[in-house]
Amino acid sequence: MQSSQAGGPKKRISESTIHRLSLYYRALSLLEKENYETVSSKELAKREKLTPAQVRKDLSFFGSFGTRGLGYPVTELKKRIATILGIDRVWRVALIGVGNIGSALVSYKEFAKQGFHIVKLFDNDQRKIGSNHKGMIVSDIANLEQELTEARIEVVVVAVPATVAQYIVDDVVRAGVKAILNFAPINLRVPEDVYLRNENMAMELEYLSFAMVNNHTPKRVK
Amino acid sequence: MQSSQAGGPKKRISESTIHRLSLYYRALSLLEKENYETVSSKELAKREKLTPAQVRKDLSFFGSFGTRGLGYPVTELKKRIATILGIDRVWRVALIGVGNIGSALVSYKEFAKQGFHIVKLFDNDQRKIGSNHKGMIVSDIANLEQELTEARIEVVVVAVPATVAQYIVDDVVRAGVKAILNFAPINLRVPEDVYLRNENMAMELEYLSFAMVNNHTPKRVK
Repeated sequence: MQSSQAGGPKKRISESTIHRLSLYYRALSLLEKENYETVSSKELAKREKLTPAQVRKDLSFFGSFGTRGLGYPVTELKKRIATILGIDRVWRVALIGVGNIGSALVSYKEFAKQGFHIVKLFDNDQRKIGSNHKGMIVSDIANLEQELTEARIEVVVVAVPATVAQYIVDDVVRAGVKAILNFAPINLRVPEDVYLRNENMAMELEYLSFAMVNNHTPKRVK
Repeated sequence: MQSSQAGGPKKRISESTIHRLSLYYRALSLLEKENYETVSSKELAKREKLTPAQVRKDLSFFGSFGTRGLGYPVTELKKRIATILGIDRVWRVALIGVGNIGSALVSYKEFAKQGFHIVKLFDNDQRKIGSNHKGMIVSDIANLEQELTEARIEVVVVAVPATVAQYIVDDVVRAGVKAILNFAPINLRVPEDVYLRNENMAMELEYLSFAMVNNHTPKRVK
């Protein structure tokens, strides 16, 4: 994976590094609540079941934070990681498909905590359209492209059946949205400049059953 | 990743191959419903946005299915993939933590369709314990180890807060469960012979925000 900014230095950051940064961010949030001012690489490593060397390597990648003997300043490091991860700001999120999974996601507090604010809901069910769902009025998916644009949506969460997901995502792309989190169990086609992540809970269980029936060597981090 | 069975041949199957097998399985289920008897590698590829060569390579890995000019027999291929993925049988699943995400997972039809039957629910909330949740009585997490053993649970889904997840998983491991799907945003420690998959929806959004703020090269399949 490659990261580059216009005029800036190019650096490669692996998916597992981003994953660990997310974990550090969570550990630091907890440390902040517990009123810690500094934290050692050893303590951070212990909390996330990593080695202190791994922690130091990850954090050195983003500049020098730590002071030998004193450790890392908790609040400053947390802020720095938030900036790197792009969660030091509010992202305007729309959720499409207010079914079982969609409804749960609206209530999922972790999203808002990380700055992902669900501000629009869409569905195609006439009984849901216009109804109030946890403080938001469900919009008609028929006006998807226009409403996404008007609401300046930056991230879309797709929680619709697999059979209709591609049509909906085509609309989402036409509305200029550049980031999609897809829960439909299907491979979606999006242009090169659109970021797509797939979340498939049933498939995760299939990795487990595959591993069990084939006596597969365990693999921890995806 | 390595797969091996006692006395059997060793073969390596990558995580992305397992992912594609899951996709083929879904495509074949749909084709079966549409009354197709055979399907070409070209049609399967088109449905899953892959190349026909990729499809042929994946499927040849598991023996010779196809007939030149006729394609693959839909029902037979679907059954074969189900066996490889370990979803041609019923797995007894317990769900721990009947909060927002936990409740949604109980209603998530994809799980049962793939043979993952949630047969036990656990919570630590006295208002939930003993209550009927979608046809199941919520059990007290205090008796977790014993009840998991008695109910012959094979797979556990963890949907509890990060702060308590490790304690709960330690109990799950003591009960002899070998497969865990974890929704808590924390790295868990499990013995080598336990299969663990992490599902973290907030982190998936962080990959997207990281990609957007760093103008990251898109990466499609996780």
